[in-house]
Amino acid sequence: MQGKNISQVVISRLPRYFRYLGDLKDEGMERISSGELSKRMNVTASQIRQDFNHFGGFGQQGYGYNVNYLYEEIGKILGLDKKHNLIIIGAGNLGQALANYMNFEKRGFFVKGIFDCKEEIIGQTVRGMKIMHTSKIADFIKENNIDIAVLTLPKQGATEIVKTLVECNICGIWNFAHVDLDVPDSIHVENVHLSDSLMKLSFKIHDDEE
Amino acid sequence: MQGKNISQVVISRLPRYFRYLGDLKDEGMERISSGELSKRMNVTASQIRQDFNHFGGFGQQGYGYNVNYLYEEIGKILGLDKKHNLIIIGAGNLGQALANYMNFEKRGFFVKGIFDCKEEIIGQTVRGMKIMHTSKIADFIKENNIDIAVLTLPKQGATEIVKTLVECNICGIWNFAHVDLDVPDSIHVENVHLSDSLMKLSFKIHDDEE
Repeated sequence: MQGKNISQVVISRLPRYFRYLGDLKDEGMERISSGELSKRMNVTASQIRQDFNHFGGFGQQGYGYNVNYLYEEIGKILGLDKKHNLIIIGAGNLGQALANYMNFEKRGFFVKGIFDCKEEIIGQTVRGMKIMHTSKIADFIKENNIDIAVLTLPKQGATEIVKTLVECNICGIWNFAHVDLDVPDSIHVENVHLSDSLMKLSFKIHDDEE
Repeated sequence: MQGKNISQVVISRLPRYFRYLGDLKDEGMERISSGELSKRMNVTASQIRQDFNHFGGFGQQGYGYNVNYLYEEIGKILGLDKKHNLIIIGAGNLGQALANYMNFEKRGFFVKGIFDCKEEIIGQTVRGMKIMHTSKIADFIKENNIDIAVLTLPKQGATEIVKTLVECNICGIWNFAHVDLDVPDSIHVENVHLSDSLMKLSFKIHDDEE
């Protein structure tokens, strides 16, 4: 695997490269120099060259980068050439918003089921899927080859659910619950703590004012 | 201002400290040593001490930290003792989910208005607020003392809206649009690129597999 042993910092930049390259592709651009890409992305050209060197370069001196090739290769490194099956746990506003977000499918992420523990909403439909009870999660994961669970439930419920996910040996958890999860190293977690993000914005505003 | 010239890395850790201290407070804990906090948060005690020293320490050798005091002080540094008025631009699933998220109010973030450009949903109600047309944003910001705009609209619409926000001299933008914004330094931006986050999770899963 090309991406092995790359620093977290470099990896965290790959989705942004992928996003910009997708835009360039949509604009019909075929080649781009590190200098041009640098201007667009507001990072130094040398950082771009260094980052891409980690993955074998993708470029030819003086010719710039082939946009399509680079887009495809970074996509492969990110695992976007593969299909992922997701379940959403927590059918509140955020869970439903994510279930309805079509763009994830374009990248190979397919929502297969949505769960909640509130009896009164079980059976309601979200994007053609009936909301199921959380007690059905373990069976559903096994029967439907689910590799990613999206947690959009209050933190009180998260611990118990995570225990189930660990038992099912889920590959990844995309965690929106307001809590840090305690899972074995074999399970990958990506946190989106929305409140933390809003607090950071608040800090920046007030740090500037005073 | 105590927080001046603190590195971004330290600042980015403050919301997490704040979250853990809030939990401790809820559990009725009055004091905690850096060692105990370190175990709970899975960071080194020396990092905790160093981080808190940036803000004047808050602790007394041998006595541990006063949980309530620390919670309040970090809250102040984050600007959470102040009231913020928000508008949400983009009344799709995600915009509505954020509008309905009550916890933000607990921290002093009040959603005052919600906007969209789609004629067919103008006038519909979200959490007691009528969805307004985006053409009304500038007036609304001035009349309602809005300091933060939440962008939950497709990237195609974002550029035009951001121009308006810059003209209104908005303090901060919480950006969920799938695009990096080009704004003057006086306007603070905090990005939540959900797709980038999901791609990072995908990378971790596949990097591990191969």
